[in-house]
Amino acid sequence: MDAAEFSDYLERCRILVYEELRRIVPEGSLGPALYDRMLDYPRRTAKALRPALCIASCRAFGGGLQAVLQTAAVIELFHNAFLLHDDVEDGSELRRGLPTLHAEFGVPIAVNVGDAMLAIALGPLLDNTRTIGLGKALRVLRLVADMARVTAEGQALELEWTRTRRFDLADADYVSMVERKTAHYSFVTPLLVGALIAGAPPDTVDRLRGFGRDLGIAFQIQDDVLNLTGEYGKELDGDLYEGKHTLILLHLLRSVSEDEREIVAAILAKPRPTAPTAPGEPRQGGGTALAGVRAAVGALTGRLTREEIEYLLLACDAAERALTLSTKTPEDVALLKGLVMKYGSIEYARAIAADWARRAERGLAEIRPHLLASADIEFLDTLVGYVVERTR
Amino acid sequence: MDAAEFSDYLERCRILVYEELRRIVPEGSLGPALYDRMLDYPRRTAKALRPALCIASCRAFGGGLQAVLQTAAVIELFHNAFLLHDDVEDGSELRRGLPTLHAEFGVPIAVNVGDAMLAIALGPLLDNTRTIGLGKALRVLRLVADMARVTAEGQALELEWTRTRRFDLADADYVSMVERKTAHYSFVTPLLVGALIAGAPPDTVDRLRGFGRDLGIAFQIQDDVLNLTGEYGKELDGDLYEGKHTLILLHLLRSVSEDEREIVAAILAKPRPTAPTAPGEPRQGGGTALAGVRAAVGALTGRLTREEIEYLLLACDAAERALTLSTKTPEDVALLKGLVMKYGSIEYARAIAADWARRAERGLAEIRPHLLASADIEFLDTLVGYVVERTR
Repeated sequence: MDAAEFSDYLERCRILVYEELRRIVPEGSLGPALYDRMLDYPRRTAKALRPALCIASCRAFGGGLQAVLQTAAVIELFHNAFLLHDDVEDGSELRRGLPTLHAEFGVPIAVNVGDAMLAIALGPLLDNTRTIGLGKALRVLRLVADMARVTAEGQALELEWTRTRRFDLADADYVSMVERKTAHYSFVTPLLVGALIAGAPPDTVDRLRGFGRDLGIAFQIQDDVLNLTGEYGKELDGDLYEGKHTLILLHLLRSVSEDEREIVAAILAKPRPTAPTAPGEPRQGGGTALAGVRAAVGALTGRLTREEIEYLLLACDAAERALTLSTKTPEDVALLKGLVMKYGSIEYARAIAADWARRAERGLAEIRPHLLASADIEFLDTLVGYVVERTR
Repeated sequence: MDAAEFSDYLERCRILVYEELRRIVPEGSLGPALYDRMLDYPRRTAKALRPALCIASCRAFGGGLQAVLQTAAVIELFHNAFLLHDDVEDGSELRRGLPTLHAEFGVPIAVNVGDAMLAIALGPLLDNTRTIGLGKALRVLRLVADMARVTAEGQALELEWTRTRRFDLADADYVSMVERKTAHYSFVTPLLVGALIAGAPPDTVDRLRGFGRDLGIAFQIQDDVLNLTGEYGKELDGDLYEGKHTLILLHLLRSVSEDEREIVAAILAKPRPTAPTAPGEPRQGGGTALAGVRAAVGALTGRLTREEIEYLLLACDAAERALTLSTKTPEDVALLKGLVMKYGSIEYARAIAADWARRAERGLAEIRPHLLASADIEFLDTLVGYVVERTR
């Protein structure tokens, strides 16, 4: 499949799934607030990779589009609910090129909209009993419940490392975290759900699980790389501001000199500058507030020596620093990024991502002989290269 | 049922449900972090009213304890997940007498633990197919999915009023909000699920819905009253700090003079003082930071007149006020509370709660003739009085 055909496959899935999402999300009698906001992230045109995977897997195993479409849309709905909560948890400011929902409407509303999305996602999964039968519908429900649990486990691992400022981690720790946080819901579950709905045999399903995991890990590593290099829709270098536990950062920490390590540790110990928590609420900081004190000092110029004035202004400087000290500055992040470049940590991560993609390629090659040729299997094949070569 | 028997009924249900919760929440291979924190709120001994309602309803309609126990525990798990997210959304500091989970571990972890609880709650509902049969299990799933959706709708209404600073609301708006936010998941769903599992006839189930709604509204109004009067486990007057849209506040706004209304509006426009968002992170504010400036000014005492020193210190005061100005002070809240007392807004709310409780009483009286006498129906009967007379 060439690049144009690949994009076209994705785009067709995206349109089908978005229509389905609009059916699933009710207009509601509550005014636009709750239900309209559920479609905020889906409206920001995304790749819709997960439902495409689900559809491709179902069709590759001989299933029909109508049987899987509703479930594919539910997976996209879960994905967007996870993004809403992730953005809150990471304090992210941009998503798909626009302010995150919590940056626009505040954390309380973002948390609640996510919860509401998780709630309404269950309806179509229950309706599935009518379209794919009772047995399959119940197994899909179980897979989706597991998916939500495993994703929260991955998130818990990372949040705990952040909370306790743990950076003494091996690459294997990272892999075990992103397998849960990303690969499971973004790759493994869509593939398994598609295959289950198509009625694929159990041994192929097991192979599919390994393929999805390997590809998902490659995908997340490439995501980390793009965060530092890409045109992305997210805040460039956001991972460095957030002190995310990426392979890049772990490699850097292993590579730096003793002196550099101390500097890096001091930067990582600072939180990111906090986004405003509600619209209109200014960032807190001493700058404006201390302007009045500085003016008062200035008014006394004739009454004090230059040294005394200087002394008072230095005290003001110190007060301002104390009020903003605790957050990472752009200079801090530039320093981290300089070290990342110096030690080739991005190239290191790229190489590891390529390894996982090769594993995925071998996994798919093992499944392929069991399937008839189709555009869907071509899509999955092309996807493996795309995952590590993509630039957004 | 006398008070001792009533407490005993609740306590027995609580113990059974807590054991069940310990089975549902897996020990997990992720260390204590995620799964242990799911039991944090349930361990803080609560009334466990919702599972008791579910059990009482099932048994009153002739169902068995074993058939309903797992589902009752799931409802308690949902309740505790809602509490985690509510506490984040309201910025609450205390829950059942201890710091809220987000006050202890930060907002990101509290949001994620709540998500994980919602995810694992689905497992036992799917296992239900084995204990209560496929048809009933699917109908319970649908009721629980609706419950999560309706609760988020109620929360959305209130959060939107808060975001847009809307206080021009009628009592009917409040009732429509708490019907969704509280009554549906705390009363209606537990009662309906219990009756469904017992196999109660559809017309009785409809009556039960009205009974649960009326009782739930009475319960929430009494909750609002206790927030201002009670020994409660929550922050006393927390609702006033949060500017919650209670009947009490709506009554107050209708009762005050023009001048008072302006003062009240100005206070309500300020956000509550923010709790620290992560452990160890100090509240932001100018106090400590400006201490250095004040000391510098003090060191110049001999060099400046008393008026000049005073002038600089006033500038420091102004800077400090600018840094903390935007949040409600204890004096603000005391003023609101004084007006609440002056205008009898608490008595007003108590009277409305009593009305709803009487409606619930009549509703239960209509159901009662269809049921055999049992301790369970006695429990429901006693509950009606308890809901509006309770002091915690």
